[in-house]
Amino acid sequence: MKVVIVGGVAAGPKAASRIIRMDPDADVTIFEKGEFLSYAGCGLPYYISGVVSEQKELMATPVGAIRDSVFFQNVKNVEVHNRTTVTEVDRENHRAKYVTEDGTEGYIDYDKLVLATGANNIKPRLPGIELGNIFSLKGVEDAESIREQLSELSARDVVIVGGGLIGIEVTEALVDMGCRVTIIELLPQILPMLDPEMAGLVERYLEANGVKVVTGYGVTGFNGDGVVESVSTSNGTYNAEMVILSIGVRPSVELATGCGLEIGTTGAIKIDEHMRTSDPDIFAVGDCAEKVNIVTGKPCYVPMGSTANKEGRVAANSICGIDDTFPGVLGSTVCKVFDFTLARTGLGEKEAKDAGYDVMTAYAPAPDKAHFMPTAKPIAIKLIADKKTRKLLGAQAVGEGVADKRMDVAAVAINCGMTVDQVAQLDLTYAPPFAPAVDNILTAANVLRNKLDGHMTGIMPDEVKKMFDDGVDFQFLDVRSPDEVKQAKIEGSINIPLGKLRTSLDTLDKNKPVVAYCKISLRGYEAALILKHAGFKDVVVMDGGQFMWPYKTVKV
Amino acid sequence: MKVVIVGGVAAGPKAASRIIRMDPDADVTIFEKGEFLSYAGCGLPYYISGVVSEQKELMATPVGAIRDSVFFQNVKNVEVHNRTTVTEVDRENHRAKYVTEDGTEGYIDYDKLVLATGANNIKPRLPGIELGNIFSLKGVEDAESIREQLSELSARDVVIVGGGLIGIEVTEALVDMGCRVTIIELLPQILPMLDPEMAGLVERYLEANGVKVVTGYGVTGFNGDGVVESVSTSNGTYNAEMVILSIGVRPSVELATGCGLEIGTTGAIKIDEHMRTSDPDIFAVGDCAEKVNIVTGKPCYVPMGSTANKEGRVAANSICGIDDTFPGVLGSTVCKVFDFTLARTGLGEKEAKDAGYDVMTAYAPAPDKAHFMPTAKPIAIKLIADKKTRKLLGAQAVGEGVADKRMDVAAVAINCGMTVDQVAQLDLTYAPPFAPAVDNILTAANVLRNKLDGHMTGIMPDEVKKMFDDGVDFQFLDVRSPDEVKQAKIEGSINIPLGKLRTSLDTLDKNKPVVAYCKISLRGYEAALILKHAGFKDVVVMDGGQFMWPYKTVKV
Repeated sequence: MKVVIVGGVAAGPKAASRIIRMDPDADVTIFEKGEFLSYAGCGLPYYISGVVSEQKELMATPVGAIRDSVFFQNVKNVEVHNRTTVTEVDRENHRAKYVTEDGTEGYIDYDKLVLATGANNIKPRLPGIELGNIFSLKGVEDAESIREQLSELSARDVVIVGGGLIGIEVTEALVDMGCRVTIIELLPQILPMLDPEMAGLVERYLEANGVKVVTGYGVTGFNGDGVVESVSTSNGTYNAEMVILSIGVRPSVELATGCGLEIGTTGAIKIDEHMRTSDPDIFAVGDCAEKVNIVTGKPCYVPMGSTANKEGRVAANSICGIDDTFPGVLGSTVCKVFDFTLARTGLGEKEAKDAGYDVMTAYAPAPDKAHFMPTAKPIAIKLIADKKTRKLLGAQAVGEGVADKRMDVAAVAINCGMTVDQVAQLDLTYAPPFAPAVDNILTAANVLRNKLDGHMTGIMPDEVKKMFDDGVDFQFLDVRSPDEVKQAKIEGSINIPLGKLRTSLDTLDKNKPVVAYCKISLRGYEAALILKHAGFKDVVVMDGGQFMWPYKTVKV
Repeated sequence: MKVVIVGGVAAGPKAASRIIRMDPDADVTIFEKGEFLSYAGCGLPYYISGVVSEQKELMATPVGAIRDSVFFQNVKNVEVHNRTTVTEVDRENHRAKYVTEDGTEGYIDYDKLVLATGANNIKPRLPGIELGNIFSLKGVEDAESIREQLSELSARDVVIVGGGLIGIEVTEALVDMGCRVTIIELLPQILPMLDPEMAGLVERYLEANGVKVVTGYGVTGFNGDGVVESVSTSNGTYNAEMVILSIGVRPSVELATGCGLEIGTTGAIKIDEHMRTSDPDIFAVGDCAEKVNIVTGKPCYVPMGSTANKEGRVAANSICGIDDTFPGVLGSTVCKVFDFTLARTGLGEKEAKDAGYDVMTAYAPAPDKAHFMPTAKPIAIKLIADKKTRKLLGAQAVGEGVADKRMDVAAVAINCGMTVDQVAQLDLTYAPPFAPAVDNILTAANVLRNKLDGHMTGIMPDEVKKMFDDGVDFQFLDVRSPDEVKQAKIEGSINIPLGKLRTSLDTLDKNKPVVAYCKISLRGYEAALILKHAGFKDVVVMDGGQFMWPYKTVKV
């Protein structure tokens, strides 16, 4: 069996290795247009920052062997042609045409072909885009160029165009090196995989770390003489000795469209659950292939290195006649910037609504470990559930605490169609250095249960803000302790500590609406129950408490 | 509705708070025999070590309010009698008898009674057990006594009797304070919740940190004049200026048996899924109540603070007429000692076999993050699955890396009855600072799939050792690189780096058995496939590679 694999970064080599393991007689050849094979693209931001000190670490195995063509030949028994581009696939004759860097053309026959052609960075067609020191971050070469530039510049302004993951990951490296970083994002928020208010927490954190975040304004051009000097936007001009484009990627499908393979609605190559394209002898894996969202069952495009590995294995199994299927993705994502983690899985709130769900959400901001442990740090979890089935649809977490663990738990729960009631009862590991006795994700599930069951009626911070702006006559009841209020108070709030509420009911008006809250709205919830029991007609709780309040507060 | 709750540490106050929230008219009274309410018992080891600096932090809310009886009255509207013991329950007349510290007796009527009487430390009846400086670690008072002793002693030998969780958690604190610690455990291993070879990894780590671990020998008595000076065992005597007993706990069921409630086979109070005892008006929650193992459906006894909280909520809901059930536990556990984490969930290997499963296991030792990240640390995962259904039954993880996250993922997967095939395809969050591109738990699942599908036949390190001891004629093939071999070689092994294996086949005997391995047995697995393909008759892979080899190695 002759297998030809186009693309040598992630999914391609994975498929190759597995094919040889399952069928040692197979004749497997990889074509890679670049120089480097099987490298950790996700590690590039850490190579730029110097956390990863040498380029070769990104292409080494865990024990230090460099995965070059010699390695693939000797260890894996896979032939590799790097710096060689496959330019055409002749499906009828089962052969592919390739061209080497020096222009030599050749043909190779295949029984099975695997497309692992990856994705291309989106490069906006803007005036000045051809100026020097405007970089994308896709391959090792890009990272080298950025490193080189950084070592040459001294005081420097860097503009990151686009608030996507790569840009955020690189931000920390740039700030550590003394750069002044501005992120310019056309959309009203950075990090489109997060719900707006969760992204807002990241924006405020970045700003507290000296990063300028400009949202809602598009870049209109780049200015400079040979090299970039500034970036023009619809809201003014920003100095920039370097620009990094982080607008996102598009699946690289030229080879697939060239030979008439079906392309999905997302623009990526359409495949079935065996990773097979519309041609049964051609498979597509990794960033060039379309994904299925496990929750909605609909096509989506979420290119991830973790997914590429799994797809490579499934394609290899399918090629070797072993039954295996890839169920799809949840869009699980995690990213670190300074000491902040942001993570998500499943559907976002808008995504869930767009998919037709009647959605209920809940926030649970809380310490990530037993609160008496000095290592405890806050994280804010948001859960998104379906009112009808009570199934968990999505989860997001942001903060200095451990967020990835909770999102992994949520990912499995969503994958299995668990209800929030089932999630709340999960037996997760507990000891003070690792979690609170009731883990954050269980607390979040319990808040959601309380809301679903009508014990708690929530109102979002932005809705409360609107009530103030609209001049609504209501009582904004802060039940925190006086010490907490001194630190940061929301103007217009009335403070009655929870412990004094039962004896202070006559200071409030039963017939006026009440919005109760505390730091995280657990005490706010208790306050609302007390008020309702005392005959207050209209009592709601501000979701997430002051922790989720994105507007200004005052020191008393 | 009058609700009386016996026990004020974890599950009791949780039930009380929830009852008042769901039914503000309820009249709820807590009796607690000790002084302290609602304190974090799991935090005591960290109070001894000074990580938690003040006692009151253990009984404060996350915002610093002390949960004393005034707090419960004002904030929760719950009456609390501490230093008051409930001595009798008169089920027929729905009333309980109590006695205060000064001997005053009284009676209280109830509509519903909640037993949250907790557990008692097992205190062995051994000669000298009454000597001074022999401590259990159950309540705040115990922790105070231990702290006091530690501050008075200078050079000191401490013996921990029993290799349970509390003893291990306290070990780090003691070593940090300059104590010489010896752990004496009657069983052949410490940490009975782990499989023996996983506990072995912890034992060797403790020994590398200067802790003496003595297994397989029981304590026969304590010697000293007023205060303990040494501990006698069936294998000699150990100096001890302080002894900490960590043998485990027994459910405190005196009150339940006294009023004729049914006790389960585990010795804990028998309850249904609503936390109701054999008397429909009496509930039991927390460490005094029996649990159900979710995998086997059988009763078990795993007292955990995390479970107590959930049970308290379910009991409260049941009392307030809200339908809620507690599905049971997985025995999920995590513990930190020095920089090592040990964690587990579901069934252990022996437990699974005893429950009648035909078991297959796999090891996956690997870095917990992308291997090129300097923060990556190793963890060894063991998975236990059912051969017939391919369902994941149990998981354990040990090492310096992040183990709790992977065990939480496994807990949800086991809870939902996932097969290892499904686990291997999970879309978990990935970025280099958080996980390898293929997360450790997915790799472990893939190893198990390879074994279940017959692609890999494993052999345990102890079986290989036995082959050596029995003089079996076999080829022990180490396919690591020469550099790795120089660091640590297993005597009797033949080294052929994987990359040279295909061209060195004639140096091996096709008709003699081969056991192949590498550092973690991924390359060992590839080697086995190459050999089988080359006509070698009997080829197996050493599970977990040299990482799981517990015997000595030599520097070359």
